[in-house]
Amino acid sequence: MDLQFDDAHFMRKAYQEAQLAFEKGEVPVGAVVVVQNRIIARAHNLTEQLTDVTAHAEMQAITAAAHFLGGKYLTDCTLYVTLEPCQMCAGALYWSQIPRVVFGASDTDRGYKAMGAQLHPKTEVVSGIMEAECADLMRTFFAQRRKK
Amino acid sequence: MDLQFDDAHFMRKAYQEAQLAFEKGEVPVGAVVVVQNRIIARAHNLTEQLTDVTAHAEMQAITAAAHFLGGKYLTDCTLYVTLEPCQMCAGALYWSQIPRVVFGASDTDRGYKAMGAQLHPKTEVVSGIMEAECADLMRTFFAQRRKK
Repeated sequence: MDLQFDDAHFMRKAYQEAQLAFEKGEVPVGAVVVVQNRIIARAHNLTEQLTDVTAHAEMQAITAAAHFLGGKYLTDCTLYVTLEPCQMCAGALYWSQIPRVVFGASDTDRGYKAMGAQLHPKTEVVSGIMEAECADLMRTFFAQRRKK
Repeated sequence: MDLQFDDAHFMRKAYQEAQLAFEKGEVPVGAVVVVQNRIIARAHNLTEQLTDVTAHAEMQAITAAAHFLGGKYLTDCTLYVTLEPCQMCAGALYWSQIPRVVFGASDTDRGYKAMGAQLHPKTEVVSGIMEAECADLMRTFFAQRRKK
């Protein structure tokens, strides 16, 4: 039996990563990298825990996927991430030559589009998968943080 | 005796890092992070050796400097890098809130300016320090690679 999973399935896995970030007090963003219907990397934002602005979910997922593949180009991969990538992560995805990026919620403030950064012209971008849930998780996180 | 070093001094240190990258067959870009006249991080491009597109000199230097400082913001720091940062590195520098970035050669092809990405509005940018040497090192590298 060869189950084919859809984008919603893999975005749910990225969302579960975002929930792990939430539980650690990190801005709740999660990502997975998929190749041939299989998850080869999972990561969530760890900027606070690692005291490192570069420790976004996507950056860790890109590094982990490249190690899994044994090469720096993420050929045939799709990255699923709960929030629109920032310009740093868009830049890393650009260099990776990944053919497909799927994100949940848009980030009209610091997303790569608002900042003017670019994905690779050959990268297909799909947005809005589980958008409401991904955005709600962010809103809940920042509402709780403001109360503290 | 409290020697105050100028931008050319620290760019020379970044250039020495770029030379280390060159010797390893890596695209020759080097970076140092300086705070209060002292180098707290040195790095050079290791994308081939680490098979990781995120292993640019600046990214490693930002991570190392944050670990040295014990916090993710590079307050009071200056990053010296031999080549204009790409959009990934500009994005990381943006998040780090670094107050000053000094680069050597411009990258009119994949530099953050050409790509449309942004440094933080509060970041002062100085360019052209050791520009000819930094650019020459890149040209020599790519000329040698084309011959192989």
